[in-house]
Amino acid sequence: MNAAEYLGHSFLDLGRQARTGVPEAVFAPGKTAAQLVSIAGRFLDSRSNLLVTKCDEAKRAALRRAHPGLHASARSGLVWKLFEKPRGGRKPIGFLSAGTSDLPVLLEAALTAAFLGHRVKVYSDCGVAGLHRTVKRLGQLEGCGVLVVVAGMEGALPTVVSALTGKPVIAVPTSTGYGAAQGGLTTLHAMVGSCSPTVAVVNIDNGFGAGCMASAINREIG
Amino acid sequence: MNAAEYLGHSFLDLGRQARTGVPEAVFAPGKTAAQLVSIAGRFLDSRSNLLVTKCDEAKRAALRRAHPGLHASARSGLVWKLFEKPRGGRKPIGFLSAGTSDLPVLLEAALTAAFLGHRVKVYSDCGVAGLHRTVKRLGQLEGCGVLVVVAGMEGALPTVVSALTGKPVIAVPTSTGYGAAQGGLTTLHAMVGSCSPTVAVVNIDNGFGAGCMASAINREIG
Amino acid sequence: MNAAEYLGHSFLDLGRQARTGVPEAVFAPGKTAAQLVSIAGRFLDSRSNLLVTKCDEAKRAALRRAHPGLHASARSGLVWKLFEKPRGGRKPIGFLSAGTSDLPVLLEAALTAAFLGHRVKVYSDCGVAGLHRTVKRLGQLEGCGVLVVVAGMEGALPTVVSALTGKPVIAVPTSTGYGAAQGGLTTLHAMVGSCSPTVAVVNIDNGFGAGCMASAINREIG
Amino acid sequence: MNAAEYLGHSFLDLGRQARTGVPEAVFAPGKTAAQLVSIAGRFLDSRSNLLVTKCDEAKRAALRRAHPGLHASARSGLVWKLFEKPRGGRKPIGFLSAGTSDLPVLLEAALTAAFLGHRVKVYSDCGVAGLHRTVKRLGQLEGCGVLVVVAGMEGALPTVVSALTGKPVIAVPTSTGYGAAQGGLTTLHAMVGSCSPTVAVVNIDNGFGAGCMASAINREIG
Amino acid sequence: MNAAEYLGHSFLDLGRQARTGVPEAVFAPGKTAAQLVSIAGRFLDSRSNLLVTKCDEAKRAALRRAHPGLHASARSGLVWKLFEKPRGGRKPIGFLSAGTSDLPVLLEAALTAAFLGHRVKVYSDCGVAGLHRTVKRLGQLEGCGVLVVVAGMEGALPTVVSALTGKPVIAVPTSTGYGAAQGGLTTLHAMVGSCSPTVAVVNIDNGFGAGCMASAINREIG
Amino acid sequence: MNAAEYLGHSFLDLGRQARTGVPEAVFAPGKTAAQLVSIAGRFLDSRSNLLVTKCDEAKRAALRRAHPGLHASARSGLVWKLFEKPRGGRKPIGFLSAGTSDLPVLLEAALTAAFLGHRVKVYSDCGVAGLHRTVKRLGQLEGCGVLVVVAGMEGALPTVVSALTGKPVIAVPTSTGYGAAQGGLTTLHAMVGSCSPTVAVVNIDNGFGAGCMASAINREIG
Amino acid sequence: MNAAEYLGHSFLDLGRQARTGVPEAVFAPGKTAAQLVSIAGRFLDSRSNLLVTKCDEAKRAALRRAHPGLHASARSGLVWKLFEKPRGGRKPIGFLSAGTSDLPVLLEAALTAAFLGHRVKVYSDCGVAGLHRTVKRLGQLEGCGVLVVVAGMEGALPTVVSALTGKPVIAVPTSTGYGAAQGGLTTLHAMVGSCSPTVAVVNIDNGFGAGCMASAINREIG
Amino acid sequence: MNAAEYLGHSFLDLGRQARTGVPEAVFAPGKTAAQLVSIAGRFLDSRSNLLVTKCDEAKRAALRRAHPGLHASARSGLVWKLFEKPRGGRKPIGFLSAGTSDLPVLLEAALTAAFLGHRVKVYSDCGVAGLHRTVKRLGQLEGCGVLVVVAGMEGALPTVVSALTGKPVIAVPTSTGYGAAQGGLTTLHAMVGSCSPTVAVVNIDNGFGAGCMASAINREIG
Repeated sequence: MNAAEYLGHSFLDLGRQARTGVPEAVFAPGKTAAQLVSIAGRFLDSRSNLLVTKCDEAKRAALRRAHPGLHASARSGLVWKLFEKPRGGRKPIGFLSAGTSDLPVLLEAALTAAFLGHRVKVYSDCGVAGLHRTVKRLGQLEGCGVLVVVAGMEGALPTVVSALTGKPVIAVPTSTGYGAAQGGLTTLHAMVGSCSPTVAVVNIDNGFGAGCMASAINREIG
Repeated sequence: MNAAEYLGHSFLDLGRQARTGVPEAVFAPGKTAAQLVSIAGRFLDSRSNLLVTKCDEAKRAALRRAHPGLHASARSGLVWKLFEKPRGGRKPIGFLSAGTSDLPVLLEAALTAAFLGHRVKVYSDCGVAGLHRTVKRLGQLEGCGVLVVVAGMEGALPTVVSALTGKPVIAVPTSTGYGAAQGGLTTLHAMVGSCSPTVAVVNIDNGFGAGCMASAINREIG
Repeated sequence: MNAAEYLGHSFLDLGRQARTGVPEAVFAPGKTAAQLVSIAGRFLDSRSNLLVTKCDEAKRAALRRAHPGLHASARSGLVWKLFEKPRGGRKPIGFLSAGTSDLPVLLEAALTAAFLGHRVKVYSDCGVAGLHRTVKRLGQLEGCGVLVVVAGMEGALPTVVSALTGKPVIAVPTSTGYGAAQGGLTTLHAMVGSCSPTVAVVNIDNGFGAGCMASAINREIG
Repeated sequence: MNAAEYLGHSFLDLGRQARTGVPEAVFAPGKTAAQLVSIAGRFLDSRSNLLVTKCDEAKRAALRRAHPGLHASARSGLVWKLFEKPRGGRKPIGFLSAGTSDLPVLLEAALTAAFLGHRVKVYSDCGVAGLHRTVKRLGQLEGCGVLVVVAGMEGALPTVVSALTGKPVIAVPTSTGYGAAQGGLTTLHAMVGSCSPTVAVVNIDNGFGAGCMASAINREIG
Repeated sequence: MNAAEYLGHSFLDLGRQARTGVPEAVFAPGKTAAQLVSIAGRFLDSRSNLLVTKCDEAKRAALRRAHPGLHASARSGLVWKLFEKPRGGRKPIGFLSAGTSDLPVLLEAALTAAFLGHRVKVYSDCGVAGLHRTVKRLGQLEGCGVLVVVAGMEGALPTVVSALTGKPVIAVPTSTGYGAAQGGLTTLHAMVGSCSPTVAVVNIDNGFGAGCMASAINREIG
Repeated sequence: MNAAEYLGHSFLDLGRQARTGVPEAVFAPGKTAAQLVSIAGRFLDSRSNLLVTKCDEAKRAALRRAHPGLHASARSGLVWKLFEKPRGGRKPIGFLSAGTSDLPVLLEAALTAAFLGHRVKVYSDCGVAGLHRTVKRLGQLEGCGVLVVVAGMEGALPTVVSALTGKPVIAVPTSTGYGAAQGGLTTLHAMVGSCSPTVAVVNIDNGFGAGCMASAINREIG
Repeated sequence: MNAAEYLGHSFLDLGRQARTGVPEAVFAPGKTAAQLVSIAGRFLDSRSNLLVTKCDEAKRAALRRAHPGLHASARSGLVWKLFEKPRGGRKPIGFLSAGTSDLPVLLEAALTAAFLGHRVKVYSDCGVAGLHRTVKRLGQLEGCGVLVVVAGMEGALPTVVSALTGKPVIAVPTSTGYGAAQGGLTTLHAMVGSCSPTVAVVNIDNGFGAGCMASAINREIG
Repeated sequence: MNAAEYLGHSFLDLGRQARTGVPEAVFAPGKTAAQLVSIAGRFLDSRSNLLVTKCDEAKRAALRRAHPGLHASARSGLVWKLFEKPRGGRKPIGFLSAGTSDLPVLLEAALTAAFLGHRVKVYSDCGVAGLHRTVKRLGQLEGCGVLVVVAGMEGALPTVVSALTGKPVIAVPTSTGYGAAQGGLTTLHAMVGSCSPTVAVVNIDNGFGAGCMASAINREIG
C-alpha cells in the first residue's frame, strides 16, 4: 500500500498552464501557508508573474516573510509580483460598486486588471439608492470600452449602468447580504435575469474572474 | 362508510368571514366553474360585495352567464360586484410597473384597491431601463401616501422608487421571467433583500394582496 | 499598478445619502471595528443622528471606547446617538413576537422606530401556542395604526394577528429555527404565502427594515 | 434481445403485499386506465378490499364501466370496494381543514380511514383566519384520540390545533398555494418546524397516508 | 427613546404555557448560560418539572453549578429535574436508530419520553445494512404501541420498520450525513416520501418532538 | 443577414461519434418527428445500429411508418434496429425495481443493455416493503457481476441490495413520487447519500445511462 | 371604480426605449398574437428595425399574415424586419454549440448578432464528447474577437473553448437536460463556476442576450 | 427515569457488519477522539483490518498515541491498519483529478482501493484547462478496467475522460468551489447530467465510496 509514494512525483505540476492573457493565479483557500510559500517560490525562481487570490491575513504574512519582494493588498486579499508588465488594452477599464461592503471584490477585480497591464478607473460610491451620483460617475467612465459592476443584495446596479451606457457590463454578485440573499445566490440569479441584454455574469465574489474577463475583452479592443 | 354525507352540511361555509377592510374575495384556481357560480350566487343573494380573483376566460364567462350583473376584467382575471362602495382613504394610492408583462398583476392590485373604495393612480411604463421616465412618473405620484410597485426579472424597481420617494412601498414580484428567475422566486428574494429599508413584499403575482395591504394602510392614513 | 492609490479618494463617501425618514444607518457586519469607529466619528463630527445595526459585543465596546457619548443595546446589537429627535407619527406603533429567541429582532425593530421619533408598544409573549394571551395583547394595541410582528419557525403569528385586527402587518421572519427552517427561508416563504392579505414581509432577521417601513407608514398616517 | 418476454411473468405481482391494517391501495398516477382496470379485476376476483387513490375523472369512469360494483368519490379521487369491513378503533378520528381548496385532500384522508373501518368526524371550515370557529370545532372533537389536520399556504392550523388540544396531530400540507408556496414544500417545511411538539407530518397532498397513519394509531388506542 | 425600559416588565413571561402532556421544555440554543440559569431557577422555585434541550457542555456545567439538583445527559444534551413523575402510557414506547452518529438524537427522544412518564425500549444497532439484526430487534418491540425511528443519510429505516411491523412510526431525520444530505433535508424529504403509509415525520434532529409526539399517542393508547 | 444559409451545411453531423461500447443513441425529446425520421434514415442507410430513447407514441408511430424495419417498445419508449449484435459480457446483468411505476425506466435500462449485446435478468417486484421477496430475488441474481437498481420515493432499494450482495450497484432514481420527492431530486440525493459504499448513481429516469454504464463494466468483466 | 379607463392612455408606451446598439426587441411569451401584431405595426409604421423573440408557430403565422414583409425563423423563434442595417464590428463573432438540441438557442444568438449588423460564424457540432472536432473548429474561429458558446447538461464546452483559445467567451446555458439539470439551473451554476476565468454567463436559453452582449463587445472592438 | 442505563448494553455493537469487499470503515466526524480510540481498540484486539475516514489532525494524533501501530495520511485524513492484505483485482485502478484542491479526495479514494488490495495509478494534473496533458495521461491508464475521476467546479473532467476512453468512470464531485458551486451540489448535479452515458456518481467528497465502488467492480473483473 504505497499509493502516497506513487503520487510523489505528480505533485510538482500544480499551477495552471500559462495562456495568453490569463494570469498565473493561485487560489489560496484550501492550501496551507506552507504550500503557498512553496508554490510562490517556484514562480519567483522562474521569474514568472505571480498572483495569489483570496489570501487571508496569516497567509499574506507567511508569504511576505518567506518572499520579501511580494506585494499584498489587505482589503482585496491579493498578493502579487510583477516581473514584466503585460501590455494591456488601449482604453481604461471601468469598475463600479455600490457600497463599502462590496469593496474587497471591487478591488480584487480592479487590481487583477491592473496586474494584467490595463489602466483602471474605480468608483465605489454608485448605489442605486443615490441615482444622480451614479449618473455623474457614468460620465467619467465614457472612455472605457468595458465595465465591471460589483453589487450585492438585489443586484440592480449592473442593469441600471448597462441601460444608461449601452456598454458591455461584466456583473459580479457579492455575498454581502443575508437571509433571502442566500449567500449571494439571489443576487447572482437576479443579475442573470437582468432586463438589460448587455450584462453577463461571473461567480459570486469572483472579482478575479471579472478582472480577467474584462482584460480579455479589453485586449481584443486593442 | 358514509363520510361524504357526514360532510354535507359543512360545505356551506366556504367564504372567509367578512372583516373590516378585507374584501370577500374568492380565489378561483382549484375551484370548478360550477362551484364559483354557486359561491357567487350566495354573495349576490345576500347583497354582499363580491370579488373573484385569478379567474380564467372560461370561468369568467360561466360567472357572467349565470349572474349577468357581474363585472369582469380580462387582463387582471378579476370578476366583481359592488353593492355598496366602501369608504377608501383620503389620498390616492399609486401603482407602478415596469412593462407590459407585469400589467395583469398591476391591474389586479389597482382594481382591488378601487373595489375597496380607494382612488388609484396607475402607470405601467416605469422600468429601470428608462430612468428619466421613472423619475417623471414619480412626480405625478407625490400626493400618494403608499405605493404598490410591480416588477419581474431582477426586481429593481421597488428599490429605486423607494429610494427616490422615501414613501412606503409594497413590492409585488411577478413570475414573468424565465430560467434563473425560477418562476418569480428570484425576484421575490431580490425584493426582500432590497437595499432600501422602506420596502415590504407580498407573494409572487399577488396583486390582490398588495391591493389589500395598500388599502389597509391607506385607511389608517385617513 | 497603482490602483489602490487611485481608489484612495473615493473611500470617503461610504454612507447612504440622508433621505426623509430613513435613518443614517450603518450595517456593521463585514466592517472592522476600526472602520466603524471612523465612520461613526464622521457622523458625530457633523452632528448627524447615527444608528449602527447588527453590532457584536467587541464592536460595541470599540465604538463606545472611541466615542463615549454613544448608546448601545446588547440584545438588539444597536448602537446610536440622537442629536435631534425626529418627529414621529401621531399614533404609537405596535411590536409583537412569540418567544425569547425572537427578542433581539423585536428590539432591533422597536428601537429603530423609537430612534426615528415614534412611540412604541412592545410585547414579546404572544405565540400562537397561547392564543388567549395573544388575543389579550391585541386589545392593548388597538390604538396603533401599523403593527410589526416578529416570528420564527412556522411563522403563523402575523397571519393570526392580521386576521384578528384587520390592521396592516409588517412581518419579520427570524432565523431562530433549525432543520427544515433553513435559516429562516421557510418562515419567510410561509409568511409571504399567508392566507391573510394584509401582511407584507421584510428580510429574515431584518428588524431594522421593519422599523423603517413601519415608521414610513406611521409618518404618512400623520 | 428478448428482454421484454423475459419480463413477462413478473408483471403479475403488482400490488403491495397485504399487511395488517394497511389497505391494498393502488396509486393511479402513472398507470393507464387499462392497467388499473386489470389490477382492480384481480382484487375483485379474489374478493379483497380495494382502494384506488388519486384517480382522475377518465380513470374513474373506466374503472366503473369495467367493474360496475365499484364506488367512487369525485372530489377525493378515490375508487373503492369493501368486501369485509375492517374493525377500526373504538374512538372516532377527527379531520379538519381550513378552506375549500384543501377539501379533496381532507376527503381522501377521511374516506381512507372510513375504508379502514374507523368512524370519522370531518370539518372543513376551521382556518386560522376565523379563530373562534376553530375553537368551537375543537370542542366537538374532544372524543377523538388522534386528529388529522389539512392545510396549505402558511400551514398554521396544525400548530394551533395541537396547542389548543394537546392531542397527537397528523399534519398534511397541501399544494394549493402559489408562488413562494413552491407547490406545497413551504407548507411542509413550516409544519415540520411547528412550535408545537405533538405534530408529525406526511407528504404534500398525501391524504391517503394521513388516513393510514391515523388508522394505525387509532387501532393501537383500541 | 426609552423602548428598552418599556420592554422591561414583559421579559418575565418566557416559558410556554404548561399544557397536558407537553413538557415545560426550554430550547437552549440562542439563550446565554445566564438566561438558562435564571429560567431554570423559576421552574425549580415553583417545583415544576423542567427539561432543557440541545444544551452544550458549557451550559450544562453552568446549570448544574447554579442548581446542584439537576440531572444531565452529555450525549443527548438534555438537562432535567422531575418533581412529580407524570403518568405515562400502559405500554412501552420503542426507539430504534441505525448507527452511533444517530445516538444523540435517539437518546433525546427516549429520555424525553421517559421524562414524560413512559417506559422505553431503545436499540441503536438496527441499520438497513444489517437486515437480520433489524428483524431480530423488531421481535423485541412487539409489545410497543408506537415506534420512534431515527436515521440519517438515505433514511430508509423507518420505511423498513413500518413495513415489517404495521405499527405507527414517528420518523426522525438526522443531520449526520454530508454533501447531498444537505444537513438532513434530503433525509427529511426521503422519509416524507416513504413508500410505507404509516410513517409521519418530525424536524431534523428533533428527538424532543418525536418523544413528545410518541408520548401523546401512547397516552391515548392508555 | 444570411446566418441561416451559413449554418446549412453544419446540420448534417447530428449524431454523437460512435465509440466502443456506447450505442449510437438518439435522445428524442426536443426533436420533431420529422427530424427523428431523417436522423434514423441516415443510420439505416449506413447500416449502423440505431437506438432512439424517450420516444413518445406519436414519434414511435412516425418512425415505424417511415422505416418499417424498426422495433419499438411502448413501455420503455425505445425504438431500435440491430444490424450486427455487439459482443456483450460473459455474465448476465441484473436489473431490479420496486414497483410498476418504475417499470418504464427499468425496461429502458435492460433493453439498452440487451441492445449492447448483454444477457439480462429483470425483476420488477422487489420493493423494500416486502423484504423476503427481495431476498429471494437476490438469490436468483448471484451469477451477475453488476446490478442496476431502479427506485423512486425514498430510494432505499439500492442500499438494501448493495448491502445484501456486496456487488457493485448502479442506482437509477425515478421521478414517480410527488410532493417532497421534487421530481426525483430527493430520490437522487438519498441514493447518493446511501450508507452502502458500493452504490453509484445516474440521472433521474436515466435508464439508458444505467444500461450503458452496466454494459461498460460488464465488458471489462469479460 | 373606473381604474381600467384610467389606465387606458398609459398602455401606449410598451416598447423599451431604443438605445445605441440594443435592438428594439419584443419578448413574445405572455403577449397575445393580437398584442404582438399591434406592437409590430407601430414599429413598421415608424420604419424602426423590429425583432420579436421566443415566438411560437401560431404567433409567427399571425405576425406574417398581418405584416407580410416580416422575416421569420422557425427554429430560433425569431421574427424580424430590418429597415436599415446597423454597422456591426470589424471582426466576425463566433458561435458554437454541442448538439442539435441546443440549436434553437444558438440560432437565436447568431441571428440576433446578424440583425445587429455583425458577421457571424456558426458551428453546432462541437461537443466535448468529440474533442478533436472541437479543436478543429476553434482553428476556424481564430479571427473572431469574442465567442458565444451554447451548451446544456454539464455545460463543459465554454470552459474548454475558453481554455483553448484565451478569448472572451459568453456562455449560454440551455434547458435541454432533464432530472438533475433542473431546467438549466445546474448548467447555469456549472458555467458560472467554470475553472476558466474568461467566461461570463447569461440566462438559461437567452440566445438573444448573448447576441446583444457579444454585439456590444464587438462594436467596442471596432 | 433510567433510560440511560437501559441503553448501556446496546452501545457495544457500533461497527457495520463486515461484508465481502467492503472495508470495516469508521467515519470519524461526529465521534469524539475517545470514542474513536475505543472503537479502534476493538478492531485491533480482534486483528481486523481497520480504516478510519475523514479524520482531522487531533483525532489522528489521539489514535496514534493510543495505538502506535496505526498508519495515517495527513492529506487524505485516513488512518488504517492492515493485518491481512485482501486480494484485489488483476488490473490496476486509475485515479485522476484536476488540481491540488481535489487532492485530499483523490488520495482518500486511491488509498481506500489500495487498502482493499488493489494496485492504483494516480494522476492529479489532468484538468480540462490543459487538454493535451489530460490526453497524455489517459494513454498511461489504458490497462485499467475502471477509472475514478475527482473534480470540483463545473465537473467536466469525468465527461471528457469517459468520452475519450469508453471505460466506466466513477465520478466524485468535490466541495472545493464557492458561490454558485453550493458546496459541491452543482458539481454533483452537473456530473449526474453528464452527456457521456458511462459515468456514475457518488456523494460530494466521498473518496472512500468511490474507492469501494471501484474495488467492487475491479474484483468482479477478476
